[in-house]
Amino acid sequence: MQHTIKISLSTAITFCFLASSTDVDAQRIQPVRFSEVNITDQFWKPKQEKVATATLNACIVQTEEKSGRIRNFEKVARKQGEKHEGIYYDDSDVYKAIEAMAYSLKNRPDAALEAKADEWIAKIAAAQLPDGYLNTYYTLTGLDQRWTDMEKHEDYCAGHLMEAAVAYFNTTGKRVLLDVAIRFADHIDSTFRVANRPWVSGHQEIELALMKLYHLTNQERYLKLADWFLQQRGHGYGKGKIWDEWKDPKYCQDDVPVKQQKEITGHAVRAMYQYTGAADVASVTQDPGYLNAMTTVWEDVVFRNMYLTGGIGSSGNNEGFTEDYDLPNGSAYSETCASVGMVFWNQRMNSLTGDAKYIDVLERSLYNGALDGLSLSGDRFFYGNPLSSIGNNARNEWFGTACCPSNIARLVASVGDYIYGKTDNKIWVNLFVASNTTFQMGKTSVPLRTETDYPWNGNVRIKVSPGQKVKYALHVRIPGWAGNTPVPGALYTFTEAGNTKAEILLNGKPAEYLVEKGYAVIDRTWQKDDEVEIRLPMEIRQVKARKEVKANEDRIAIQRGPIVYCIEGADNAGEVWDLLVPENPVFKTQKSQVLNESIVAVQANLLAVKPAPDGLNVRTEPKLVTAIPYYTWANRGKSPMQVWLPSKMKHIRIAE
Amino acid sequence: MQHTIKISLSTAITFCFLASSTDVDAQRIQPVRFSEVNITDQFWKPKQEKVATATLNACIVQTEEKSGRIRNFEKVARKQGEKHEGIYYDDSDVYKAIEAMAYSLKNRPDAALEAKADEWIAKIAAAQLPDGYLNTYYTLTGLDQRWTDMEKHEDYCAGHLMEAAVAYFNTTGKRVLLDVAIRFADHIDSTFRVANRPWVSGHQEIELALMKLYHLTNQERYLKLADWFLQQRGHGYGKGKIWDEWKDPKYCQDDVPVKQQKEITGHAVRAMYQYTGAADVASVTQDPGYLNAMTTVWEDVVFRNMYLTGGIGSSGNNEGFTEDYDLPNGSAYSETCASVGMVFWNQRMNSLTGDAKYIDVLERSLYNGALDGLSLSGDRFFYGNPLSSIGNNARNEWFGTACCPSNIARLVASVGDYIYGKTDNKIWVNLFVASNTTFQMGKTSVPLRTETDYPWNGNVRIKVSPGQKVKYALHVRIPGWAGNTPVPGALYTFTEAGNTKAEILLNGKPAEYLVEKGYAVIDRTWQKDDEVEIRLPMEIRQVKARKEVKANEDRIAIQRGPIVYCIEGADNAGEVWDLLVPENPVFKTQKSQVLNESIVAVQANLLAVKPAPDGLNVRTEPKLVTAIPYYTWANRGKSPMQVWLPSKMKHIRIAE
Repeated sequence: MQHTIKISLSTAITFCFLASSTDVDAQRIQPVRFSEVNITDQFWKPKQEKVATATLNACIVQTEEKSGRIRNFEKVARKQGEKHEGIYYDDSDVYKAIEAMAYSLKNRPDAALEAKADEWIAKIAAAQLPDGYLNTYYTLTGLDQRWTDMEKHEDYCAGHLMEAAVAYFNTTGKRVLLDVAIRFADHIDSTFRVANRPWVSGHQEIELALMKLYHLTNQERYLKLADWFLQQRGHGYGKGKIWDEWKDPKYCQDDVPVKQQKEITGHAVRAMYQYTGAADVASVTQDPGYLNAMTTVWEDVVFRNMYLTGGIGSSGNNEGFTEDYDLPNGSAYSETCASVGMVFWNQRMNSLTGDAKYIDVLERSLYNGALDGLSLSGDRFFYGNPLSSIGNNARNEWFGTACCPSNIARLVASVGDYIYGKTDNKIWVNLFVASNTTFQMGKTSVPLRTETDYPWNGNVRIKVSPGQKVKYALHVRIPGWAGNTPVPGALYTFTEAGNTKAEILLNGKPAEYLVEKGYAVIDRTWQKDDEVEIRLPMEIRQVKARKEVKANEDRIAIQRGPIVYCIEGADNAGEVWDLLVPENPVFKTQKSQVLNESIVAVQANLLAVKPAPDGLNVRTEPKLVTAIPYYTWANRGKSPMQVWLPSKMKHIRIAE
Repeated sequence: MQHTIKISLSTAITFCFLASSTDVDAQRIQPVRFSEVNITDQFWKPKQEKVATATLNACIVQTEEKSGRIRNFEKVARKQGEKHEGIYYDDSDVYKAIEAMAYSLKNRPDAALEAKADEWIAKIAAAQLPDGYLNTYYTLTGLDQRWTDMEKHEDYCAGHLMEAAVAYFNTTGKRVLLDVAIRFADHIDSTFRVANRPWVSGHQEIELALMKLYHLTNQERYLKLADWFLQQRGHGYGKGKIWDEWKDPKYCQDDVPVKQQKEITGHAVRAMYQYTGAADVASVTQDPGYLNAMTTVWEDVVFRNMYLTGGIGSSGNNEGFTEDYDLPNGSAYSETCASVGMVFWNQRMNSLTGDAKYIDVLERSLYNGALDGLSLSGDRFFYGNPLSSIGNNARNEWFGTACCPSNIARLVASVGDYIYGKTDNKIWVNLFVASNTTFQMGKTSVPLRTETDYPWNGNVRIKVSPGQKVKYALHVRIPGWAGNTPVPGALYTFTEAGNTKAEILLNGKPAEYLVEKGYAVIDRTWQKDDEVEIRLPMEIRQVKARKEVKANEDRIAIQRGPIVYCIEGADNAGEVWDLLVPENPVFKTQKSQVLNESIVAVQANLLAVKPAPDGLNVRTEPKLVTAIPYYTWANRGKSPMQVWLPSKMKHIRIAE
């Protein structure tokens, strides 16, 4: 059963503003929610199972025992002057775990898991103050200090509370957490927006969360508050550590008002959450300012500052962006949460514009940079996701700052959100995931089923069976990588054109279609058992980076379909740093496994550089190497790894 | 004022047993305690200042706030059913911090620091149960489980409590913590030894601690209990995680009775603490069994399993020993605590045998492997101390398992313990540290002053000024490295003999002396203002490892005096992994600084291997590099580092 509150009229308003500089689709695409999509996919379904069991279990063990985030809530409720433990933003981890539990419970009901969530929710509710404030750090360390340091994540934690509350209500219909979130949202609204008291969020997140609360409750004050938070930025209102100690408003994108931002700066996750929230606001208010700004910022990210894996943020120092084209591999930060944020933001950008390039980026981040954050076992995590390793990287059980585990958990559990979209007379197929759902086209119900072994196989069958004939346009995304453009903006290109192109068949015959913004549009009258087949070219491709990316000079990477490959020591006698790519390397696919994960591996004839017998010179010898999907590395112990393979030596290291 | 309890007669008994296989000195050397030594040294005194301020402050901030170890004691006292936080051995960190505070307070009184220690001690005392038991983990998680898993560090924590109690009593004369420790020791004695209930300590430490309690209180039951703990091992009594889950009694040296042990195995710190305790027992009981066993085990450590830095334990998997000669550099564990343990144990071995080779090893571990654990700033720490780094190592503020920070703090604060020793008619000078102390030779008081800039300068002046003429033998250690034997057992050797030898002068003229077990013995009648000058040869020496050490094949290291050098990127344009040592490298010294630390650096003419312009071959070019003392690396940000420099290429890495 799907629980809903009366849906706001405003969300149904046709989205059509007259943007001057931005090409805006006539209709905002409404993503089909994961709760309406039944995933049958061999790639994603087992991962959702892992999240439902191993990942959520890790979250529970950590929340209750090892790092004990829940204890702060208990301490607040006991009112015995006990000390706060952990870091001031730890409340958010509990909320995000509940959000992930909510999504998972929707996919896979589990009474014990729901009971656990209810238990936590009771503790959270008991820790809320009568005025609606809820933050264990300030409540335990001194309430007189609350709302004084804008960096201290009070609103960030509030945002994650709201996201969890909306998710848990949507799954269970239970209002306890939702009422807590509403009271806190109202407390914040009256304390700041209504009181006209400036507040710059030091870690954006509440904006997108308020938009979820707005869409669920139809209370306009949450929309206004979300917009208010965005509009606070860039005016010098900041107070607290970021501004007074670090003197670095750019770190949280507060140097320039959001609508005037042109470059990506600072902390990557903060940026992604901000723009996601801005897109959510813009989709309702029809304010072109956010979209204009974001179009330029997005190009700055994707054209100059994104890893091949869709990860962003090249430095651990600021967990964020540095200079254009500064994309080191070994020290890549590429935080799991930032890739999750890329999925959020790019979905919104697609939704606002109807342009498939955003899904190209979303898919890249999802299948590579984000998914790499989760071990195949489901209970180990990467915080950063480097593109090379000398063999010292291992996934962790948990982190002091534990944003990533629950973030990747909630993303995988709700991956159904990113597959399909709908506008009045259009169906949008964005990702290729075996699944079924039903669209309502006017009065006609249109069951739709996708069958595919994507990402390993490029054949995708989409079967539609409307109860009666119905006219609509089916928009099927043709991935950029299928058309020799792995990412927009030519930051990465394939070294040669593919031999084959995407083919689209309708009921077994070449389909007639137009291409609009990266989608194949088949606009016709559909009837029962119609089937569209997409055949995507799955050649193994060599990727090169723009020459401005110094780290990848004279290097190539391997990609097949949406999957970026890496070469790991575990498959290659322990060594991957002595490899050189010859002039015409030969690649072939090989069905294989990494632990229990079925994959398509790539075998390549490369060269290995070895010392000559005198120990002072070198010689090269042929070496047959195996490449595996990037997201599967570091699951078999510590092992060296490279995504970008050199064709020339630039620096030599004489190893032990 | 030195506070003492009546000293046990047994400690004054002349130590003289008839060991068959072991060459035992006729008298046990009594180390002069640090409290009797006034350190004026330019090397050590600033480090003790750093410990007294920065290091202890870090311990306090961690104990009270960040990792909050003290909170568990508060929770026990409150009796409100609160949850234990952290790990089950965390109590020990509080005790070790108090021990370090006690030593530092002796060196440098500080009312605020003493008040802080008293505050903690009151909390600790309040957490002791009426029956004497004191362990916050079991008291908070379920007392019914206490003393069930021998791995759970209950006796280890008790041992650190005793050490802290003895240290704090010795400095302050305050008995509160001592009485707590005595009650707990008595509880353990009655629960186990008296009740004849088997118990194998899963982490040895209590044995040496009980010996400290024994020497302070003169209560023979503590001696008996220490010996009892040792004798429990090797009979299959073990119960708990190590035995039942891991099935690995060797991990804690419980596979063979202590007196039958012949090889070093398992966890390095456990081993060091065990043998230290065994030596302490043997020095009183005159039981030759421990010393016989330890003589063989020590050779196994020093001849086959010790890093050039004096560090031990080559694997992080067991935090300990692997195969003989398995001494990898980059993945060296070489835990700071294990080097601290090497200092403890080697002092006891020297004390039992009068052999300077143990001080050779002690000095090596102290100035290199142990000291590397502490940043120059005093508030950052290494847990492991690798001998090479690709630039990813950084000292940490603290650790989840935080044994190392307080361990290095207590060692540096009490380094005065290792300088001088005494037997009835002998004065022993073991380390060369500018300092003064007073010996009582019979009825004559003999003030002694050492002046030196060691370890940077090899000239050491020892001035003695007895009030009246007095005959005794001055034993001055001639370091092994000064005689072309950097360590006993030839695990490491210098590539060529030094050009000069140690010279010893008496009042300006060559002294007459015999060499006994590594000491220059000047046996004469001394009078006021006599001065012995030792001139140690301070050439820069190349070290090579036995060929069995595969990791160092075709490699050399640099040593000068007791100091092992390394080459760090910070001094060498960021790169140290492209270096090759030519056939006849030229080295010279250079006075320098690493941050504020004055050092003698070494400059060397080496080769750098660079790719040829074609990117497929290599060429070598001369490179003048700077080497710094190993203990000073990793103080200027992350940077690559190597101790062992290759003269041939064995493996090539093509770096980014």
